[in-house]
Amino acid sequence: MTFTPDARINLNRLLADLDRSAGIGVGREGGLSRLALSDADREMRDLFVGWCREAGLAVSVDEVGNIFGRRAGREDDLPPVLMGSHLDTQANGGRFDGILGVLGALEVVRMLNDLGHVTRRPIEIVNWTNEEGARFSPPMLASGCFAGEYAVEWVHERPADDGATFGSELQRIGYRGSVPAGGRVPDAYFELHIEQGPILDAEKVQVGIVTHAYRSHGFLVEFHGETAHTGPWPMEKRRNALVAAARLLVGVDDIGWEFAPSGGKATAARLVAWPNKTGILSDWSQAVCDVRHDDPSNADSMAGKVVVAVEAAAARAGCEARILDRWTWGGRIFDDALVDSIRSHAGGLGYTHRDLPSQAGHDAYFLARICPTAMIFTPCRDGITHNNAEFAAPDDIEPAANVLLHALVERADR
Amino acid sequence: MTFTPDARINLNRLLADLDRSAGIGVGREGGLSRLALSDADREMRDLFVGWCREAGLAVSVDEVGNIFGRRAGREDDLPPVLMGSHLDTQANGGRFDGILGVLGALEVVRMLNDLGHVTRRPIEIVNWTNEEGARFSPPMLASGCFAGEYAVEWVHERPADDGATFGSELQRIGYRGSVPAGGRVPDAYFELHIEQGPILDAEKVQVGIVTHAYRSHGFLVEFHGETAHTGPWPMEKRRNALVAAARLLVGVDDIGWEFAPSGGKATAARLVAWPNKTGILSDWSQAVCDVRHDDPSNADSMAGKVVVAVEAAAARAGCEARILDRWTWGGRIFDDALVDSIRSHAGGLGYTHRDLPSQAGHDAYFLARICPTAMIFTPCRDGITHNNAEFAAPDDIEPAANVLLHALVERADR
Repeated sequence: MTFTPDARINLNRLLADLDRSAGIGVGREGGLSRLALSDADREMRDLFVGWCREAGLAVSVDEVGNIFGRRAGREDDLPPVLMGSHLDTQANGGRFDGILGVLGALEVVRMLNDLGHVTRRPIEIVNWTNEEGARFSPPMLASGCFAGEYAVEWVHERPADDGATFGSELQRIGYRGSVPAGGRVPDAYFELHIEQGPILDAEKVQVGIVTHAYRSHGFLVEFHGETAHTGPWPMEKRRNALVAAARLLVGVDDIGWEFAPSGGKATAARLVAWPNKTGILSDWSQAVCDVRHDDPSNADSMAGKVVVAVEAAAARAGCEARILDRWTWGGRIFDDALVDSIRSHAGGLGYTHRDLPSQAGHDAYFLARICPTAMIFTPCRDGITHNNAEFAAPDDIEPAANVLLHALVERADR
Repeated sequence: MTFTPDARINLNRLLADLDRSAGIGVGREGGLSRLALSDADREMRDLFVGWCREAGLAVSVDEVGNIFGRRAGREDDLPPVLMGSHLDTQANGGRFDGILGVLGALEVVRMLNDLGHVTRRPIEIVNWTNEEGARFSPPMLASGCFAGEYAVEWVHERPADDGATFGSELQRIGYRGSVPAGGRVPDAYFELHIEQGPILDAEKVQVGIVTHAYRSHGFLVEFHGETAHTGPWPMEKRRNALVAAARLLVGVDDIGWEFAPSGGKATAARLVAWPNKTGILSDWSQAVCDVRHDDPSNADSMAGKVVVAVEAAAARAGCEARILDRWTWGGRIFDDALVDSIRSHAGGLGYTHRDLPSQAGHDAYFLARICPTAMIFTPCRDGITHNNAEFAAPDDIEPAANVLLHALVERADR
């Protein structure tokens, strides 16, 4: 058998894998809570590695836990075509976000096995560690490391709330690999993903052609104050770090509303403080927030306002502020030729499709910094995601997965 | 020997006890982190119970862990005169707040033993459980229960951040006693305490005569929203419970500044949210806040503004709000005759003294609801408290402790 325009993925096989995944790290009803480097993440990784080996892939794990499954090409010294996403989820996450991209890539490889088609270039499928940032901040930590944005040692030092570090947890679950993270340039990177927005579902369009990404700026901010009694201590002397962080998050939310008419969003994502107890002012706090806009100049303007809000919040609360970390992504980052190829395959396969931006963060954003990259979106019901109600029907999944199959083979055979 | 106006407490014995206490549940340098019903609290309780028994007191523990040490009176059927405070501390607490009142009471009893003086009425000394509210909200939980404000079952159900409950922790450390909590009326209650404010130290006055208490209103507020992705989800659809809580705490801080010119204070004390993670909106949060003012009508007005702020914060963030708990204390709650007696003994002993209000919350506030109650303040350096830098020098402690001795004996002998 050879690869022809009639080739299609095996939807039932993919659905069965998604179902298996949906039983590991079960969260609220219908959802998952499979935080990066947790026991559930390990269980899912073990399952995925087994599936890769059954599909004849050569498995390797890098220093930050990224798992690669390699299928040899006819000219195996050529850089591989890479495709994948992530298997970790949010604390109240869904069964598709990230997972579809990894298991969809596995299905593409299995179908090539079924068809007996060996591509010119090697193919690699990948599961990136800690895409969500739900346990270790920032998100897309290990794809960022692969792309040379973050040093391995810094990644290993990232802390979780329970005092564990990324490195210690990686070691604990047995996924601290020996392969250097990154330092190589794939031929291209594809990522299949649910839209995480309402457009495709609302318009009943089958495939989303991702042309660009909302520009996003994220911040991790720390405030230092002083503990004191909540009763007698005069307002003028107070240095309550909890107040500083709350003022920042309200300021960030206000920025979101200011830019909402043009589609901007700003998020108060996280606040922790110490001691954070009744009867005492807190002397330490951290806040995580982000701003996003389709128009990069608006996004940059929003980010500038966040920096002003940090200083204003600190000053009002008598605290010191420090921006510990900042991350930026998005823009017109995807490869035009790859995007055109995806659009052309969607049409050729007879699917309805439309161009649209990606609003969420994705590992693809970091890969786009080192190699031609593109994303393919499936619809998801009502655009709901990062919620146990997240859902993509079989009919939502199949078209985009077939587009991935054909675009991937075109690229790998060229 | 009999009790004469020359009687004085043994300062060195009291200081030695304070030093022993300062080694149990050590926090930051010079401070304590002895949270209620922790292992450290148990260790301190065990030590205190041992000291009580050595002093010949009959020890009993009630259903909410309050420890009583009883010294028989000549007419032992009369209601006892009670004195004490609490041995638990804030997470970044000091070595004197509460502890001085318990160990000072013990020293008074020891001195009566040394003098061979048996009072007409029995005397009891007491350690109240969880005064600080640093582990279980609200503060003054077990004295409130003794005074009939809180049901025993409700107290037992109060949760800690680690999932434990007051009842389970009480059981675990072996201090769930069988004596019913409250249901009896002491003859009077005295509480010796550091001022937790700067007045006595600034004016170099030796003894504070507490005439009344700042009116305080505390709130535990819960918000419910919905998780969603921090990227694509439109601002108009967001129901971020973290934003609701942050908006409330900023509103509360603003109320504090509004009333600061007349000495009012408002505190953002605590904020927790779930999932409270990068990349996802939170669907649950809780906030603890309080407002205080020397003028009860101002305090009540501040509390009214908090209620408005709760609704405004919820509405702005698209969340539902519920005030889960509310507590109020303060006002002209102390017994005039007891206060006069304390003032008169302070003068008779040759100490400088002044009247002043209490601004912090104290177990005495609940006791004042059931029996004549008074408080005696010592100076503390710069008014710093709920901080490891909290300090009261031996010279600060001795005068007020001697006033306690004489006022207590006068009351118990009358």
